[in-house]
Amino acid sequence: MRDIKWTDTERHIARRAYDAALESALARIMSTFKAKAAAASQPSDMWAVEDYLGRSRRQVDETFDYRYSQLLLVFARLIQERHLEEAQLAGLSEEKLATIRSMLSRGR
Amino acid sequence: MRDIKWTDTERHIARRAYDAALESALARIMSTFKAKAAAASQPSDMWAVEDYLGRSRRQVDETFDYRYSQLLLVFARLIQERHLEEAQLAGLSEEKLATIRSMLSRGR
Repeated sequence: MRDIKWTDTERHIARRAYDAALESALARIMSTFKAKAAAASQPSDMWAVEDYLGRSRRQVDETFDYRYSQLLLVFARLIQERHLEEAQLAGLSEEKLATIRSMLSRGR
Repeated sequence: MRDIKWTDTERHIARRAYDAALESALARIMSTFKAKAAAASQPSDMWAVEDYLGRSRRQVDETFDYRYSQLLLVFARLIQERHLEEAQLAGLSEEKLATIRSMLSRGR
């Protein structure tokens, strides 16, 4: 993947898709966080929210990696986690889309 | 403080006061936590709640120490932080209450 070339247009498409997926991931965390916080009634519920936020923050940090050497793998993962649809990547080369599909079919 | 003797009655009074103060501290954290969570609108607000809960949990762990060698200091601190009133310690020996008052007057 390191040798794949990205045109300016592709970089633009990738950036937009990446930002939209990040926004989707954060919105999903926010929604779960708010529901858990509103339902909390015991101290242990508060600490469970703290743990949930910590896990979520680490997961976001691990998933969202904008290095071009990692980006196709990142996109495959984001599609798998339903933060991204393949249609948002329209305009990337057929080779890149095929690589992403191949990763998805291998369940990565 | 290590040599102070505690009667059974005093241990009972201390335990009840300690538990009430812990409940008060946790209730205050819960209330602030719920308000912050309800007001959160940006991802940074969520991470701020995570930090708040982490700080609060550490503070509770540090403050609440039921060793008899530490208990008068703990009670002084809890009175200072308004989780406890001296009246809840009625029944402890005058020597113990004087020690607590002395700690409070030194601002510890």
